[in-house]
Amino acid sequence: MIPKPYLLFIGDAQDELAIKTASGIYEWRSEWCKAQYTYDDAKFHLDLPIYNFEEAIAQEIKTMVIGVVNAGGVLSEKWKITIIEAIESGLNIASGMHTRLRDIPEIKTAADKNNVNLFDLRFNEQTFSTGKGTKRSGKRLLTVGTDCSVGKKYTALAIEKAMLASGLDAEFKATGQTGILIAECGIAIDAVVSDFISGAVEWLTPDNDINHWDIIEGQGSLFHPSFAGVSLGLLHGSQADAIILCHEPTRKNMRGVKTLLPTIKDCIDENIRLGKLTNPNIQCVGIALNTSNMQDSEEVLKEEISRLYKVPCFDPLKDDLSDVVAKIKSI
Amino acid sequence: MIPKPYLLFIGDAQDELAIKTASGIYEWRSEWCKAQYTYDDAKFHLDLPIYNFEEAIAQEIKTMVIGVVNAGGVLSEKWKITIIEAIESGLNIASGMHTRLRDIPEIKTAADKNNVNLFDLRFNEQTFSTGKGTKRSGKRLLTVGTDCSVGKKYTALAIEKAMLASGLDAEFKATGQTGILIAECGIAIDAVVSDFISGAVEWLTPDNDINHWDIIEGQGSLFHPSFAGVSLGLLHGSQADAIILCHEPTRKNMRGVKTLLPTIKDCIDENIRLGKLTNPNIQCVGIALNTSNMQDSEEVLKEEISRLYKVPCFDPLKDDLSDVVAKIKSI
Repeated sequence: MIPKPYLLFIGDAQDELAIKTASGIYEWRSEWCKAQYTYDDAKFHLDLPIYNFEEAIAQEIKTMVIGVVNAGGVLSEKWKITIIEAIESGLNIASGMHTRLRDIPEIKTAADKNNVNLFDLRFNEQTFSTGKGTKRSGKRLLTVGTDCSVGKKYTALAIEKAMLASGLDAEFKATGQTGILIAECGIAIDAVVSDFISGAVEWLTPDNDINHWDIIEGQGSLFHPSFAGVSLGLLHGSQADAIILCHEPTRKNMRGVKTLLPTIKDCIDENIRLGKLTNPNIQCVGIALNTSNMQDSEEVLKEEISRLYKVPCFDPLKDDLSDVVAKIKSI
Repeated sequence: MIPKPYLLFIGDAQDELAIKTASGIYEWRSEWCKAQYTYDDAKFHLDLPIYNFEEAIAQEIKTMVIGVVNAGGVLSEKWKITIIEAIESGLNIASGMHTRLRDIPEIKTAADKNNVNLFDLRFNEQTFSTGKGTKRSGKRLLTVGTDCSVGKKYTALAIEKAMLASGLDAEFKATGQTGILIAECGIAIDAVVSDFISGAVEWLTPDNDINHWDIIEGQGSLFHPSFAGVSLGLLHGSQADAIILCHEPTRKNMRGVKTLLPTIKDCIDENIRLGKLTNPNIQCVGIALNTSNMQDSEEVLKEEISRLYKVPCFDPLKDDLSDVVAKIKSI
């Protein structure tokens, strides 16, 4: 859909989290990523060459992707000028920002004049029905979390990759901005009107072959006071046959609030209890640990958790996933 | 805000549920309602005189309120012509429809030309933050339900009325279309983008005097596969000190889906368990039964439920509410 390869726009990223869209695309679709574009004051970069627009065009780059968070959701004058320069150089622009590129008159005019496309991926023109809760064919796995930003997207992508590698029929289903840029389709569930959360997920993961698995990117946490409603709608709409609980062992508080993190046990139990409303056979098939902030003892922790909950425990970016894939296959 | 009195537009209502907005306004704000406007083929009416626009103006009616559901969310040509006629007669128009009056060019033009106002109450220009989950001062009661359309709005309004009558400081907080037309303010929570459900409720019921009670209109049910996410966001955002469980004893299936109704016990327990995330002191203070479809034995049922759950059980439209008000006062 989006012409490739990409120039990833990093802007003046001040921390690692700010470029999580760029790093997500680069991690999972590195073959699409040829270079990055940064301002001089950027503090974080990707391991990619830095190009200006002239170099990008010379290297046959087709699209600049906005890979950095715009602070406060506002598109600064500086960004706007850069985006227009990119357009005038002949690059398409792809974005998952809350601000629509095509709603900014100067950007829209420049794109029309230079005959390039604007891809506003957060916005899906699809209208949804309210969720029905009726059983759909095919199977579904949902990644759930003890918090936001604990690895639900990376876990889903790693599971898809491992399942495809073992010859299973699996497809990653994106529900957030970065996931959509990786999958080139999906629904930014945080932009869906609240009445249609579960309905949107039902639309995203429709009836399918009996052995097909949709691997659905989860959002938030049932225990997060800001986003639990979204997480519950996702759980009900996905009618998950299987969940994988994602957790960041060094995290103390839920992101952005003062609420303490739930235990792994409480989080699994709550997802199973509430998930039974639309799938009585829901089960937890694994626990994914994001160990990137751990200094040591990860192996001990994984073994202990695995023994305690009787499911594979793994870091999806480091470990072999054949145990959890075998467990999924057995359902 | 909206100029009064009202002419309630009933259109060609084919059943009682279709006019629930009109009947809600008439039930709770009868002093605002002077007449109704209907088509010849309407099968349901209110107990109000039927006026044409000339009569309405002669009787100093100021606003026509859309009190009937537009089938399929589409504004028919017939309705459009009627609304324009009303405008040309000099009436303001108020609506809680998904379709914005001001987005229909002919209606907008007619309103501008005739110098009348269009009130699109479903749409709130307010932008919200995500929920914070931090404790707010003042107290909050939320009506929750075993299903949609079991009396959550009527219960909240009845509780507000009874509390005000006993000298307590209480205020109904609307979260749906009809509630907003009754309260003349509020947020149509089903139109809020999913990331901001709990944040919108935090905004709707901010810090207040220590003895002030916000009486919040609930939506959906934690057990409804279409809307549970909305219900959970409402529960977390309201930080309810008290809940009243609303139930329709003759209902077998959840509205619009095949899911069975939960038991009263399961529904109270689930709301208490999940509500504790943002208010550890949440408690159930009463059970409201909508007995309008019961032939007899309501008294026996209420007594039994009250004994079983050790809280007052009542029909909010029929019974004296002093027991439940006393219970609320004791918190």
